[in-house]
Parts: sequence; structure tokens; C-alpha cells
Amino acid sequence: MNKRIGIIDIGSNSVRLLLADIGENNSIRIINELKEYLRLGAGLDKNKFLSEEKIQLCLDTLATYKNICSAFEVSEITAVATEAVRSAKNQKEFLDTIENNIELKINVLTGTEEAYYDYFSTINSMNIDNALIMDIGGASTELILVKNRELVNSISVPFGAINLIKQFGINDVLEKDQETDLKTFLTEQFNKLEWLKEAKGFTLIGIGGSIRTLGKIHRKSVDYPLNLMHNYHIKNTDVISIYNLVKTKTNAQRKKIKGLSSDRADIFVGAAAAIETLIDLCSIEDIIISRNGIREGLLYSHICKNNVPVENVLDFSINTILINHHSNIDHAKHIYHLMNSLYHGLSSLVKSSFNLERIIKTSAMLHDIGSNITYYFHHKHSLYMILNSQINGISHKELVMSACIAAGHRDDNFPINYSEYKILISKEDITIIKNLGLLLRISESLDRSMISIVKDVECTIDKDTVIIKTISDKSPDIEIKEALNSTEDFKNQFEKKLYIV
Amino acid sequence: MNKRIGIIDIGSNSVRLLLADIGENNSIRIINELKEYLRLGAGLDKNKFLSEEKIQLCLDTLATYKNICSAFEVSEITAVATEAVRSAKNQKEFLDTIENNIELKINVLTGTEEAYYDYFSTINSMNIDNALIMDIGGASTELILVKNRELVNSISVPFGAINLIKQFGINDVLEKDQETDLKTFLTEQFNKLEWLKEAKGFTLIGIGGSIRTLGKIHRKSVDYPLNLMHNYHIKNTDVISIYNLVKTKTNAQRKKIKGLSSDRADIFVGAAAAIETLIDLCSIEDIIISRNGIREGLLYSHICKNNVPVENVLDFSINTILINHHSNIDHAKHIYHLMNSLYHGLSSLVKSSFNLERIIKTSAMLHDIGSNITYYFHHKHSLYMILNSQINGISHKELVMSACIAAGHRDDNFPINYSEYKILISKEDITIIKNLGLLLRISESLDRSMISIVKDVECTIDKDTVIIKTISDKSPDIEIKEALNSTEDFKNQFEKKLYIV
Repeated sequence: MNKRIGIIDIGSNSVRLLLADIGENNSIRIINELKEYLRLGAGLDKNKFLSEEKIQLCLDTLATYKNICSAFEVSEITAVATEAVRSAKNQKEFLDTIENNIELKINVLTGTEEAYYDYFSTINSMNIDNALIMDIGGASTELILVKNRELVNSISVPFGAINLIKQFGINDVLEKDQETDLKTFLTEQFNKLEWLKEAKGFTLIGIGGSIRTLGKIHRKSVDYPLNLMHNYHIKNTDVISIYNLVKTKTNAQRKKIKGLSSDRADIFVGAAAAIETLIDLCSIEDIIISRNGIREGLLYSHICKNNVPVENVLDFSINTILINHHSNIDHAKHIYHLMNSLYHGLSSLVKSSFNLERIIKTSAMLHDIGSNITYYFHHKHSLYMILNSQINGISHKELVMSACIAAGHRDDNFPINYSEYKILISKEDITIIKNLGLLLRISESLDRSMISIVKDVECTIDKDTVIIKTISDKSPDIEIKEALNSTEDFKNQFEKKLYIV
Repeated sequence: MNKRIGIIDIGSNSVRLLLADIGENNSIRIINELKEYLRLGAGLDKNKFLSEEKIQLCLDTLATYKNICSAFEVSEITAVATEAVRSAKNQKEFLDTIENNIELKINVLTGTEEAYYDYFSTINSMNIDNALIMDIGGASTELILVKNRELVNSISVPFGAINLIKQFGINDVLEKDQETDLKTFLTEQFNKLEWLKEAKGFTLIGIGGSIRTLGKIHRKSVDYPLNLMHNYHIKNTDVISIYNLVKTKTNAQRKKIKGLSSDRADIFVGAAAAIETLIDLCSIEDIIISRNGIREGLLYSHICKNNVPVENVLDFSINTILINHHSNIDHAKHIYHLMNSLYHGLSSLVKSSFNLERIIKTSAMLHDIGSNITYYFHHKHSLYMILNSQINGISHKELVMSACIAAGHRDDNFPINYSEYKILISKEDITIIKNLGLLLRISESLDRSMISIVKDVECTIDKDTVIIKTISDKSPDIEIKEALNSTEDFKNQFEKKLYIV
């Protein structure tokens, strides 16, 4: 570990502490997260003064957080505050109280800065070129236009899930006239932003609790097989359906919707209306949920020099996982190299309508990751770990395929219940999994000694045969002997006899 | 890591390399395992000379293994040989050839030494006081009598799965007269061992491929939910059923028995007869399978000073896992301490007919182990990791209970499909899981800051209430506030109102 950092986020609803280790090659590991619902926003009186009581409560919490940071030997604390403190008339009193009592300096972020950290957490954890980012909070919403991975425009507008509900007096079912007023207001507000026109047809990246709730409701409705919220995709039509579902229900009825927690039952309809209005206005078809936000943006700004985003999100994520698990990176890279050579030599045999590059990289680089649990059955553990390590820069479909391929790297009969993932993978995908699983198994055999005896391979495809020629300085007897165990499988899958020389 | 060692085992069937890291506090981590089926035993001619061809084959394999050891920067290689080399008339030529060519010294184990390492691998990885250990190989069988954890008697007898079949000309179905001859022979051989009488009623610990096959067949027949072979229990009646099943079938029919691999279909019946005879003779009721053998025995002899076994198998195993995963050991110990205090204070409320000590220790010490995969959802990962980390010194039932309890440490609604484990846990066990899960959740809340603010707890039980008094130097506000989230659950489970002060 190079350093341990603490990030404190003083929001309108909650005060949070995130502890993370930054290791070799800027690998990140989250080690603890705490939150306290202090509701500072609700502590602002009508003149926008934070009450003494809330200031004291916040001081107590921050004092505890500071103690935790020192117990965890944190070398650097970054503390930021957003809307509630930003708009407080007695902001200085608040900041001084904290600093004088516990020597903690708080950086009050501007709306633009807040939007920037939203952008920065997204760009470092998702494969996007052009997108519109929307972070809906309780009392404000950030909108960020991204083009070619760069932040082009951003704004923080002063309405969010809670104050929309208050402003339009929505208490239960959304009445027809309330809906008209609410949507007219939202349309007017969005229309003021000239640059939003440039987001036409873009993907919408959604941040914040309300948007995660949208994802939770959708996940429950389709019985989603993965425990992942980040990079979860929803179609515009599904967002509209969910909005239509919640708006016609009373709060009591809403609480029964699976995925909608009871403390959001009342405010969710306001946020849903804002999303629905925006996707309609910008003709957005795809919505992707991000579970990251400003805390993660601040975390990435710790490791990205001059705030230049990581070059390749997937590579960075794989690298972090390999480092965090003390994996044999040379072997992982060598298997990726061999599998890539095999795939390119045999690509005419593996039929796919989409690019398999990320799948090959992920399955090969992480095929042994399960050894971290135990060496025995590690291919099975690799499946579990690939599905659950929150790898960024890869779709959930690609992730499932990579995990299944990795699980097959030592065992041609490894049983996988594909039907569990049927929402993500088709029959054709299963064939690809078996094909690539076989190539990974051959690659693994060709580095059985794990010391790169076989440097590379060259493939020749004939009518009835495939010849894999190994390139090597030393005798790769063990490797070839083991690789030849795959000939029967090869014959079954590709209808060609395999020779390895 | 303190050192990396390589263990080479030259057996009658296969030559194997095991690579392991020995770290802090003698924690062990297996990092690679290779095997080549050289069948040295079959390379002995009628005069017991190893053929030149087999010697060359073995030299090639050992040369590769030595290269692998240097590539992996192994600091110490232990190479041993058993039956085939032990009985070879040209043993010296074999040993010299290896040493002169690749500077590898091979230690030819005596039968007694072989039995000792079987014992040593067992005593360090299983909770046993008194037991009879049986290791059935291809051409020899080791029997070891253990009393009060000490090796009292041992022998290596010169018959095993392969030569029993040969000696009695068994090729297919076991004929009535063949069975009579075989069992008469086995009974006579076992009866010669006077000290076997002392093993009457002992548990039989089974080692070796044939006994693992027995376990595999049984696992398949009951659709066993865990991927664990070590410490798998079988009743004598089930062993007899499996023996009766295989003896009446042809080899072709046997290959269709789930769990019986086709290359063991012929020889398994001989081993099964030996086990069946022994358990009958010694009135053995319980058979436990060990997946360890002499390699693991050699590994343990690297870490146990003066060959004194580890004091507590479970503690050693938990410690190894915590170290291997760079866990926060202070927090783990503190949660164990708090949970233990809560359990002892409230034991009258948790109804159990068996001792829960190992379950409390395992679930508390390893509750956070899933953070190793990702912090988010780590309670879910803890469940997977506890089930799959091959923890020694705890039964499979206790393991499942510990894993389920750990999974509940952050989420009272964490969904566990208990029916999956119905072969191991009863309805009463599920109640215990929920009770202890709640105590673990309260303990975790009481160390929410992870810096041991709450030192200890004292419990008072009244007719309708329970009071948990926290003992602390500093103000444990965050801790108590979070622990109070469990009051509803507490009321539901124990029908008492919970106060935490």
C-alpha cells in the first residue's frame, strides 16, 4: 500500500466517510464506508441558517470520523461539503466551528466542482465517449455533457427529488394537473440549457439514490442474476413504464413495489418525472446507472495526475484486481498473449457477431483470480470473483461470458447453469463461451509450468485439421502433452482434428 | 511471504510437484500443483528393476519441475519417493542418475515414514483425538493408529487397489468365490496386526484416490451442496452399500456410476473391499475422508517445530486465512470477543442441543473476509469464501452455519436459500443461524467505527427486556445508534425488548 486516504462528504441528507487504500500502480481498494443521516438540509431555517443543533451533530460525527481516520492510520483526509453548507448563510461559522474544534478543513464545492467530480468518477469507471450525466440529489441536480471523454458543459440546477415534491405539493398519487405543472416546469428548466440540444440521442448516465432506485425496481422486475448496480442498462421505455407505475399509486401502494425502499416512496416520483422529462427532451434511448459519485470522483483525482482520466478503464480495473489479489501477473499476461494468438489464428472458426476483445482480455487476465480463495477448485472461484469484483469498462453480458470462460480453463465439464443468466446471454453466446473456454484451456495447458516455455503459437487451418505450432526455446513436452487432452473437445466444437507440434 | 517451498513426490502412479508459500505465523498458501502420470510402478520388471525408459522419463519430468522451482524462486525443495523406488533393485542407479544430472537429492521414504507423513497431514488438518488412518495406494496401504492425537502404531502393508485386483484375477464383476478369497486374504492380513484391536469403534480417516472416489460416489448420490472433500463424513452402512453396488457391476456398468472416473472403474472394487473388510473388523461406524496425504504432511513438517502438531486446527486455519487475505485481524478478534460476550450473556435465549463455540469463532473471525473480493456486498462474499476456503477443524454443518451467520452480519434480510443445504442443517439450525446472525450484527454495530470504542458488553435478562450495557472509555454514540437498529429483529426473535446503554 502506498497510502490510505479518507474522503468525507457532507451532503444535504447524509455525512459519509470513505476509506480507501491506494497501492502499487494506483490500484484502489475500498476498506470501509460509514454514513450518518444528519439531514443538514432540513436543518436550514427559512432564512437559510444552519441550526446550532445540526452544527453540533455534524461536529460530533466529524470528530468520530477523524478518530477513525487516525486509528486507520489515514495519511490524507479530503473533506468536502455540498448544497446544504454551500447555501447556508452561516457557512463561515460552521466551517470555523469544525476547524477550531477538530482541525478539519472543509472544502465547500461549487456546483461546477460537484458536477466535475461526478464526471470524473464516471469517466474513470465507464467506457463512454459521448454521454449526458445526470446526478439527482435531494435539492439539486447536476447535468454534465461529455463529448469524446471530455467534460464540455455542466450545471447544477437547484431542484431535486425532495424540493420538486414540496414545490408541487405532491403527497400521494400524482394528480393530472400536478403532473402537468411539474412536467411544464421541468421542460422549461431543461429548455433553458441551450447545450442540452447537443446531447440528443446520447446515452444518459444516471447518478444518485433516486436513479439507483430506478435500477433496483427494474432489476427486481426482471429477476436480474447479478449483484451489480454499476453499469446497469435500462431502456427509455422501461423508465417510462416505471414512472407510469409509480405516479398512479399512493405512497402506501408504492412501498409494496419491489426495489423501492419505503423512505423513498414519496420522493421517488419527483425524480422519476425529471428523468422521464429529460430522456424525452433529448431523445435518449439508453440509460446506464453509475453507482459512483463525487466521493469516487475525489478518489480518482487522488490517483490521476493533472486530472487526466485513466486511459483504458477495463485495463485499469483488471490491473487493480490483479494487484489487490497479489496475482501472478506475468502468467496472466502470458495466457492473454497465447489466447489472443490462438483466437486470431482461429478466428474463422469462432463465429461471433460482436467484438470479443474485452471478453478475451478479461477471461485470460483473470482466469486464475480464484486461486486467491483456494488453489483447489480455483476455476470455480474465478467465476464467482469475476462476477463479483465490480470490474469496470465491460458490459454485464461480457462479464458473464468472461466469468464462464474462466471457469472452463481447467475443466471441460465444469457445470455452469447458463439458464440463470438467460437475460444476458443467448444460445449463440454459450457456443462462443465454449469455443473461447477451449482456447483458454489450450493456452493454460501451453503454460502449464507457468514459466512461459511456449513463447507463442502459430495456427494453420486446413479442411479437416488445425495445426498449432508452438514457438519455444526449451522442450515444451509437459505443455504439449497436456494441451493434447483438448483434441476431443476441439473435434467436437470445430469438427477438425487438432495437432499441436 | 517468508519462504516458498517445493515438494516433489515420486509415487508409483504419478510424479507430483506442490508449490506453497509459507508466510507470517506459518500461514500456508498452495500456489501451484502439477502431476504427471509416469506409472513408475508399472515400469518395474519381474526382477524389480526400473526400466531405463522410465528412469529417463522421470529425469525429464524432474528437470522440468526443478526449472519451475527456480522460475518461481523456490528457496527449498523437498523430494521424496515411495513404493516404486523403495522396492526397485536399481534404486541407487536411479538416485544417482537424478542427482548427477540435475543435482536433486531424493529421500526414499520407508513405509513407516510414509505412514508418519499421512498421520502428520491428518493431525494438522482435522479435529481428531483417536482414529485409525488408512491410506490406500496402488501397491501398498498404510494403517496408522492415533490415540490422544499421537501416533501409537503404524504399518505399510504391501497390497493396494491395483495389486489386489491382479492377485485375485478380478477383471469385471466380482464373482462369489473371488470375493470369498479376497476377503479371506484381507481378513487374515488385518488380523496379523494385533494393535488393530485397539482401534475398535474408532473413526476411520481415509486417504488416497480410492477413498476420495468413495466420497465422490456418495456426494453425487446425495447431491451434496458443498465443493469440499476434506472432512467429508460417510456412515459404514453407506460404504457397504457402495461396495455392494460396484461389486455386482461390470466395468462398463461401473463407468456409468456418477463419481467413479473411468480409469478407476476396474481397480476401485479392490480398494472398496479392503475398506469394507477393515470397518467390519474394527466395528467402525464413521468414515471421514481426508484430501491430504504425504505431501501435505511434509508441508506441515516444514512449519511445525520439532514436529509438534499445531495446537488447535481451527485456530491455525482461521489464522492462515486472515493472514492470506490481509484482513483486519484486530477488528476480527474484537468482534469475536463482543459476540462471545453477548452469547454468554444471552445463552439462555439461544436454544441449541450442541456446542456453538466453533461456529461463533468461525463466523465472527471471518465475517469480513469477503471484503477481499469487494467491500460492497462483502457479507455475501463472506458466505462464499467461508464455504470455499477449505477451513480445517470444523464440520461441514458448522461451516454452513458459520457462513450463513457471517452473511447476515450487515443485512437482516440477506436472502439465503437454506433448502440448498438441507442435508446438513435442520429447521432448528436455521433458528440458531438467525439468533447468532443477530448477535453478530449487534457486535458489528458495536464496533462500527472499527476502532474498539466499545470494549465489552454486559447483559441483563428480565422477563420482558434485555439490557446490553456497553463498557467504553469514549462515547459510543454511532455504535449504539446503529446497534439499536436491531431492536425490532431482537423483539421478533427473542420476544424481549432490547435496550442498549
